[in-house]
Amino acid sequence: MTKDQGQRTALMQQHILSTLQEIVGKDQVTTERADLICYSYDATQQKFLPEAVVFPANAEQISLIIKLANAEKVPVFPRGAGSGFTGGSLPTQGGIVLVTSRLDKILRIDSDNLVAEVQPGVVTEQFQQAVEKVGLFYPPDPASLKFSTLGGNVAECAGGPRCVKYGVTKDYILGLELVTPQGDIIRTGGETMKGVVGYDLTKLMCGSEGTLGVITKIIIKLLPLPEGRKTMLVLFDSIDGAAQAVSAIIGGKIIPATLEFMDATTIDCVRKATGLQLPEAAKAVLIIEVDGEREMLERQAKKILEIVEPLGVVETRVANTPAESEDIWKVRRLVSPSLRKVNPDKFNEDICVPRSKVPDMIRAVEAIAQKHAIPIVNFGHAGDGNIHVNVMIDKKVPGQQEKADQAIEEIFAAALKLGGTMSGEHGVGITKAPYIAMELDPAAVAYMKAIKKALDPNNILNPGKILLD
Amino acid sequence: MTKDQGQRTALMQQHILSTLQEIVGKDQVTTERADLICYSYDATQQKFLPEAVVFPANAEQISLIIKLANAEKVPVFPRGAGSGFTGGSLPTQGGIVLVTSRLDKILRIDSDNLVAEVQPGVVTEQFQQAVEKVGLFYPPDPASLKFSTLGGNVAECAGGPRCVKYGVTKDYILGLELVTPQGDIIRTGGETMKGVVGYDLTKLMCGSEGTLGVITKIIIKLLPLPEGRKTMLVLFDSIDGAAQAVSAIIGGKIIPATLEFMDATTIDCVRKATGLQLPEAAKAVLIIEVDGEREMLERQAKKILEIVEPLGVVETRVANTPAESEDIWKVRRLVSPSLRKVNPDKFNEDICVPRSKVPDMIRAVEAIAQKHAIPIVNFGHAGDGNIHVNVMIDKKVPGQQEKADQAIEEIFAAALKLGGTMSGEHGVGITKAPYIAMELDPAAVAYMKAIKKALDPNNILNPGKILLD
Repeated sequence: MTKDQGQRTALMQQHILSTLQEIVGKDQVTTERADLICYSYDATQQKFLPEAVVFPANAEQISLIIKLANAEKVPVFPRGAGSGFTGGSLPTQGGIVLVTSRLDKILRIDSDNLVAEVQPGVVTEQFQQAVEKVGLFYPPDPASLKFSTLGGNVAECAGGPRCVKYGVTKDYILGLELVTPQGDIIRTGGETMKGVVGYDLTKLMCGSEGTLGVITKIIIKLLPLPEGRKTMLVLFDSIDGAAQAVSAIIGGKIIPATLEFMDATTIDCVRKATGLQLPEAAKAVLIIEVDGEREMLERQAKKILEIVEPLGVVETRVANTPAESEDIWKVRRLVSPSLRKVNPDKFNEDICVPRSKVPDMIRAVEAIAQKHAIPIVNFGHAGDGNIHVNVMIDKKVPGQQEKADQAIEEIFAAALKLGGTMSGEHGVGITKAPYIAMELDPAAVAYMKAIKKALDPNNILNPGKILLD
Repeated sequence: MTKDQGQRTALMQQHILSTLQEIVGKDQVTTERADLICYSYDATQQKFLPEAVVFPANAEQISLIIKLANAEKVPVFPRGAGSGFTGGSLPTQGGIVLVTSRLDKILRIDSDNLVAEVQPGVVTEQFQQAVEKVGLFYPPDPASLKFSTLGGNVAECAGGPRCVKYGVTKDYILGLELVTPQGDIIRTGGETMKGVVGYDLTKLMCGSEGTLGVITKIIIKLLPLPEGRKTMLVLFDSIDGAAQAVSAIIGGKIIPATLEFMDATTIDCVRKATGLQLPEAAKAVLIIEVDGEREMLERQAKKILEIVEPLGVVETRVANTPAESEDIWKVRRLVSPSLRKVNPDKFNEDICVPRSKVPDMIRAVEAIAQKHAIPIVNFGHAGDGNIHVNVMIDKKVPGQQEKADQAIEEIFAAALKLGGTMSGEHGVGITKAPYIAMELDPAAVAYMKAIKKALDPNNILNPGKILLD
């Protein structure tokens, strides 16, 4: 167990700070209050002040920091861009925030073997642009990609719209270099497409939210860049129609690159906030994008429109140019900013259910919203059943937070009852940790805790996350 | 530590046997020598006699067996079909062989969600046929698929020719039910396409060779069955030509379903053993199969042939019917039986290198073969750099086994030097365990051992595998 903040002096002991400075250089450690505040929060808007923030330059420095932390029993909280939705990088126990921003190099892109090697601090979109320049493709596309880092994406196993066809971050991670919770530098996996020597520590690290090691290098599998893409916006007169469309398209042997969904409340929000013309009869929207060989796209788009036609289509917009495609995606991107007009405080829960259960899930959410009389807005990745359920409240109104808490627990219960999970891509962090026993067997939690304890006996690395250790 | 066989009485103690009989029923436990022999070996041809063989019917019985084994400190060796190439299921320390053959039900195939749930003893090919009947597709296709089980495939993370396009077994495993090394029944993952709640125990189990849990249920992701396939046999006048063809095809943005390779020695073997007409000038063969939308296949096949044409093509055979496709695959299937004509004893090492390094690897193997004056035959999955390097000797000839041992170590060293791994799909088991330190950092091995020890403190479950614990 680490000492909690109360037991330690409010400021980090001087000899620890001095050693940190020796390791990374004097100007790469800060204890300035303004700096500490900058690294005290993430996308959850929760705040925990660290005692020091360090900016190591390489794995060797990180190894020394972790060894120091073990010796001194000070917790270390690795952090990419801090764009997580569940508090995975928050310094909940003070200690040291270890920022990976200086490890920001794309080390190589190997077009022969469709492999790249990067440092963890590379921003996802910058990496995507770099590989696309040489005709390659890195599919995972979390909404945060303009600022989130690849290291954070691996730690959280980030998803995104394209996952319905292409899978999630972990499907693209071949190998890692990492610093273990006891400060050893190890390599896991490798750069081959296959490898079965020893336990798969690479995949174990994906989604372990920085609790089992600090990622210092990532070997990434790439794909050839699809020749083209074609985007369609289809408006349905009911949620059931849209949901049936999802199943029917995939049943028709087409797995589109994206199958994004918005419910009636989402459409209303977008309409009100932006003045965008969307017909009143539209109660659900699908944004469908196919990609691949150019000669195939028109045919696939036509087939999709035939499949969905009998399912209550109100209107269809097919993009014929990149600009028109951009117009369609604009509708999707307007969702998040629009929601704030409903209510100022948003709790975005990314439950995931088997895709055929999406209508049941939406109905369950509607009932929960009605019961507690708070707006809940649903949109997200219908193709893989990963719906973002946004509970919208105003914390300043007495009783609303309590209602939201109750609603969120009921939403998780509904997802689990339908064979789903409480998180498809955001992780557990601290916000979902209290609910983990709803989803996992006690023995499974014990199995996970045994792994954490074996690898991090001093509970130094990102303690207090996922398992409530 | 488990007691070794020497310390125990040669026969299992009567009270343990009685309890086993109570758990699974009297007729589902055997200690008959003839039965023990049947479960003493796998595809390595090594033999270790167990003390008892049990055939449990369900997870509850397996849980009781494992709890008994912990109480009595008797090792348990889970076993599917025993088709492994590295001894992963061998009862190296006597004890109990736990056979999954009675857990052989396909529990459900869910066409709406492209998911199936099966018991571990289902034979891979039978499962493939069952899902194909309803228009679905389970890609992993290890050569053993006619008899290997899905549980064994998961435990070893089996591969196969189609992995170049479709990935390996672990890419299709969404969730598991398993009995932990201490006898708890837990579920990992789920049936959704995404899920990030807790550590990814599902992927950790894939390829852990039965050392971290006994798989009792598997939730499998399926794909829509491709509309059609087209097979081509291309004969090259050099290995370099064939290897360049692999890179050029993928560089041309086509990822075929298979890209199988045979070297000159392999062609010779097939020619001599079967009388099959293959031109003398052919020094390397690629079997290329594309699959997908019918309208795309002809175009892709044509493009592939254009790409490879300048690379020293001696002859091309394109299948226009399923029967002609079958004829081409017959060439590939004749390889293994043909090899025994070279020499009676085969050591099949499935090294894997980045695909651009395949020619370097083949040259390194040729030099090793020359140095030790023993035939080494190369074929396999060139598309993902996973070459099966077959060291062919006659154990009865004095000195040949020693030469083979030396050659194998040099082959591993060559693969590692090229950025590869000593096993792409066969696993470590006992045959590669002595070499594991050539590939893994000592700290990585320690990290893996810490996991094993934390989960299996009595070292009961499949001890002595992978990590030489």
